Amino acid sequence: MREFDWIARYFRPLTLGYESALNLQDDAALISVPDGQQLVITTDTLIEGVHFLVDTAPADIARKALAVNLSDLAAMGAAPYAYSLALSIPKNTTDEWIKSYSDALHAMQNMYGCFLLGGDSIASPAGISITITAYGLVNHGAALTRSAGVAGDALYVTGTIGDGFLGLHALENHHAAPELIARYLYPHARIAIAQQLAPNIHACMDISDGLMQDLGHICAASDVGAAIGLHDVPLSDAAHDYIHQHRIPLTSLCSGGDDYELLFSAPSHARIPNAIDGVAITKIGELTSDKIMRVFDENNQLIVLDKKGYQHF
Amino acid sequence: MREFDWIARYFRPLTLGYESALNLQDDAALISVPDGQQLVITTDTLIEGVHFLVDTAPADIARKALAVNLSDLAAMGAAPYAYSLALSIPKNTTDEWIKSYSDALHAMQNMYGCFLLGGDSIASPAGISITITAYGLVNHGAALTRSAGVAGDALYVTGTIGDGFLGLHALENHHAAPELIARYLYPHARIAIAQQLAPNIHACMDISDGLMQDLGHICAASDVGAAIGLHDVPLSDAAHDYIHQHRIPLTSLCSGGDDYELLFSAPSHARIPNAIDGVAITKIGELTSDKIMRVFDENNQLIVLDKKGYQHF
Repeated sequence: MREFDWIARYFRPLTLGYESALNLQDDAALISVPDGQQLVITTDTLIEGVHFLVDTAPADIARKALAVNLSDLAAMGAAPYAYSLALSIPKNTTDEWIKSYSDALHAMQNMYGCFLLGGDSIASPAGISITITAYGLVNHGAALTRSAGVAGDALYVTGTIGDGFLGLHALENHHAAPELIARYLYPHARIAIAQQLAPNIHACMDISDGLMQDLGHICAASDVGAAIGLHDVPLSDAAHDYIHQHRIPLTSLCSGGDDYELLFSAPSHARIPNAIDGVAITKIGELTSDKIMRVFDENNQLIVLDKKGYQHF
Repeated sequence: MREFDWIARYFRPLTLGYESALNLQDDAALISVPDGQQLVITTDTLIEGVHFLVDTAPADIARKALAVNLSDLAAMGAAPYAYSLALSIPKNTTDEWIKSYSDALHAMQNMYGCFLLGGDSIASPAGISITITAYGLVNHGAALTRSAGVAGDALYVTGTIGDGFLGLHALENHHAAPELIARYLYPHARIAIAQQLAPNIHACMDISDGLMQDLGHICAASDVGAAIGLHDVPLSDAAHDYIHQHRIPLTSLCSGGDDYELLFSAPSHARIPNAIDGVAITKIGELTSDKIMRVFDENNQLIVLDKKGYQHF
């Protein structure tokens, strides 16, 4: 009966006593959405060997699994509320693993203000797989979407691009790059930044599959094109050093995944701050009416990209 | 780009055009809960080799994955509203597989009245894994729970017990038992029955891990005990024949999983019908104040059960 012991000892505390979770002892959870608000729902699965390397520490898996879902809530301009957890783990998983995993979830909950609503635990015959469904709240009609872009909008990103991709590259090639590896392992969900920006922006999404591919999603959903300046894409100092040292083309940073920064458009007259909470906000281009995506180099010459982003199949 | 083709061709139609799904093109879905109602949320994962046999037909996997989640909504007295789907499948999955899978989901949606809200698709390195999160609606305060049982309540089950367990037994041992196998492959969610019973009953849950183990959950949550008559547990004719032919003890039907029938308690004076929509409702015992679970045989002798139900770890 380890499953029920684990639930009682490690997971029930993550409900923070919220009545919605029904003490994790029912068939389902039960939530009331406040009047005038809507519920934002997102689901992401992380699989060992696909989304994180084999033998990743349980705390790192927990942080990433929750962060990528919270990042989707951020993209919609929502405030985190709660999450469900479906945890598939091998039969020989130890108590220590579960403790470390749940402790990290607890710390993440505290940082982002949410609680565990319910879930499922499964003895997996093949590796670790985690599906989190996260729930957020927005005022009715205020959710940000990918389809709200307008030709002529300025295009922005938060933070820096490519760090997560390079962090994974460093891990896989045993290069020392602690800042980049940390960015790969511990993505931040730009919740507060999105909420502060929301009243003044149009389309918004989080960059998870690579800047170019995800920009393509905004263009498709908004029925517009885009023009971006490759040298306007903001890089961290660590990324600059790393791509120089390892001769990695700048374009690959725009097609690598794992950024978890916001990509958004705003009317050209909107006053968008240069930074919020110490995170830079950088204009990288604009949306265009011709439905074509173009990337320009520093000499304003058109660049052809061969690979648009991370492809799942 | 097969992932996006599949979404466009096979999964977008499952949204039935509901605005909440945002055309499956955003980071998250967005739902409004009607005034005076609460949202019931449940998550269940099905893994190849654990919850269904390797080489199970995609339509059978789809039906079961949605049915077990809808069964949890039934247990809470909720009406199905929508669901999210996280689908992990091998890289070499064919278009035909996806079509068959999504067609079966479509047929299930039509039977139970719900639509696809969003999800994730993942190229799995190891077998098929499906996590569905299902959403239902109940009137505020009207949800059924496991904790509402009261000592002295009569205990009931819907339908017949053990058929799913025997169906799996027949599949694994290549015995001909089409009715039992159908019960294992195609569980029904007792949605309408639960909603009709709801005003008159106390504790309720669905039996997924075996009658005895699940009864234990009601006892623990309601802080009561139970006494049931083993020979009052309703069996189908097919189950009677099968356990006689293969010398399977009656008790094992009470510890086998995969029933997906409702187990509920009601005040002894409540008028509970003998059947609803052709599904029998059978009294099997009562809740007691002494916090002990007892099973009696036809001579009113106490039986000791050695295995309480399906154990995940």
